[in-house]
Amino acid sequence: MTESRPYERIPRQHAADIATKILGGAGYSQAHVEVMARNMVEAQAQECHSHGLYRLVSCSTVAESGLVNLTATPEVTDRAPGVVAVDAKGGNSLLAFQAGVGQLVEKARASGIAALAVNDCFHYSALWWEVEQLSAQGLVALAMTPTHPYVAPFGGTQPLLGTNPLAFSWPRPDGEPYTFDFATSAVARGEVELRSRQGEALPEEWAIDDAGQPTTDSTKALAGALLPFGRHKGSAISTMVELMAGPLIGDLLSCQTAEPGSSARKGVQHGELVIAIDPGRFGVSLETAERLFEEISDQGARLPSERRRAAKREAAKAGLLVASHLLADLERRAA
Amino acid sequence: MTESRPYERIPRQHAADIATKILGGAGYSQAHVEVMARNMVEAQAQECHSHGLYRLVSCSTVAESGLVNLTATPEVTDRAPGVVAVDAKGGNSLLAFQAGVGQLVEKARASGIAALAVNDCFHYSALWWEVEQLSAQGLVALAMTPTHPYVAPFGGTQPLLGTNPLAFSWPRPDGEPYTFDFATSAVARGEVELRSRQGEALPEEWAIDDAGQPTTDSTKALAGALLPFGRHKGSAISTMVELMAGPLIGDLLSCQTAEPGSSARKGVQHGELVIAIDPGRFGVSLETAERLFEEISDQGARLPSERRRAAKREAAKAGLLVASHLLADLERRAA
Repeated sequence: MTESRPYERIPRQHAADIATKILGGAGYSQAHVEVMARNMVEAQAQECHSHGLYRLVSCSTVAESGLVNLTATPEVTDRAPGVVAVDAKGGNSLLAFQAGVGQLVEKARASGIAALAVNDCFHYSALWWEVEQLSAQGLVALAMTPTHPYVAPFGGTQPLLGTNPLAFSWPRPDGEPYTFDFATSAVARGEVELRSRQGEALPEEWAIDDAGQPTTDSTKALAGALLPFGRHKGSAISTMVELMAGPLIGDLLSCQTAEPGSSARKGVQHGELVIAIDPGRFGVSLETAERLFEEISDQGARLPSERRRAAKREAAKAGLLVASHLLADLERRAA
Repeated sequence: MTESRPYERIPRQHAADIATKILGGAGYSQAHVEVMARNMVEAQAQECHSHGLYRLVSCSTVAESGLVNLTATPEVTDRAPGVVAVDAKGGNSLLAFQAGVGQLVEKARASGIAALAVNDCFHYSALWWEVEQLSAQGLVALAMTPTHPYVAPFGGTQPLLGTNPLAFSWPRPDGEPYTFDFATSAVARGEVELRSRQGEALPEEWAIDDAGQPTTDSTKALAGALLPFGRHKGSAISTMVELMAGPLIGDLLSCQTAEPGSSARKGVQHGELVIAIDPGRFGVSLETAERLFEEISDQGARLPSERRRAAKREAAKAGLLVASHLLADLERRAA
């Protein structure tokens, strides 16, 4: 991120007002507007700029495209003692998650472990939002979702896998949970786009060109494919995300969300899988886990999400940090 | 592996006889001998040399040390509708897994998702052995276990994490499952030991020295720590293995299995977590998954475990491939 982008701080309520107006104006139903606005404002507060108010732009664009069901009412099905499924009916994933999370928590507490499958959803949001709702209730949570075919499998030559994020959250007795949430690609596609615009090169092992050859040329990379993080091991984890949040739940692979000849509507929707575990049914020793976190910090290494926590604390005092050019654009749209 | 090591092929029964004699001679009870021998012979047949008959040596050594309960009878506890726990009582993990896997399968079929926690076990074996028993019954399976502190967290300076393997198996309608199984360290510790003996350098990003600095010197790496695969993302996955197969199930972190001042007995045992999912309770479309595997193969990329499959087929025809020097040593021990 070498662009010079001045930022300013705004009150949380102002951010919420902008989000509500833009999403409502785009045609999302009140129920969708509410949860999407809450999600984007919180992401902005935690300085996840790529999943914050910036998403108002893409959520408006996709609304105009007609590819998303803006007024979908998710339908919850109790599939098994440990499985709840929510059909998002082509709508945004957040309302579908919200519709199913209560049953997921109940099932996890009753059975020890349970899963929530969300089908046919448009998914723009970071997964920490969901796993942290579960760890806030004392559960261990995992979430994963395929995306669209941007990533070649390790040793392959063509885009096939999604950027396939994986998130994990672990409740800590005092305060914030231990959470990680990352794409299983070597890097976010947005980072490559940014470097391409600026004529900057990429590090090795981020991407291949359209002939399947390794490249450090960011523009050639966009015509080719990203690579998974961590070579064959990261590639394997990415396939696990594809399989568990795709075929396992009767939903699509990343490569099926954008394949030639598929219906337009299948262009943006796919599935998501969330697993919740109740430590109380396992014999947990939470103090033992604290030792791991302490040792990592003592070595001077960062715990994942530390940057988000610091941003959140600062936002609570000083307001939400927003890029000025984005804010100007959003205020115009909201007016 | 640059050593010249001539190999020969032996009948499966000869391998089983050697394993049975050595393990029985070392004092393992009949129940342990049976499952351990079966496991090592199959690993040898699949040319997992590091988890095959070679382990007869370390399982004998650890038996002599008195650190493992050689005659432990695992105790199974039904903890919740979706959770079965097995106390290995300081014995080998395989018999404990075997004692609990039936209930795990029943619970997964009844609830859709279930977990098996194995506590206080000595664990030498590859995890594919376990997850493939579940995928053979049509279940999707995940397994993970901490080990001992050989790996520094990303950004850290000291060994803390285990090599923390993670395995996943997915049933395929025709034939062998899709399975991956790997350490979350950049490389196996054995590979670094081998290179150190041979005075060979390591690639970048495999290890740090005892001052916490990156090193390509294999001997300095042994005095320092391995690094996780895939930088901060692999490190995060390694912590997930620590937490889920450690504190979640009331068992140890890798760093607690070898800490100064702990009782000697805690030097080799830790926990393991296995999760099984019944696709039938989710709405699975197995054909969709096949498309993923076909696309990977069509790109010329290898599916994980392909080498094992080929070795297995060859072993069925021609016998098990064993390093001649190892075979000679084992035949001496068995005599």
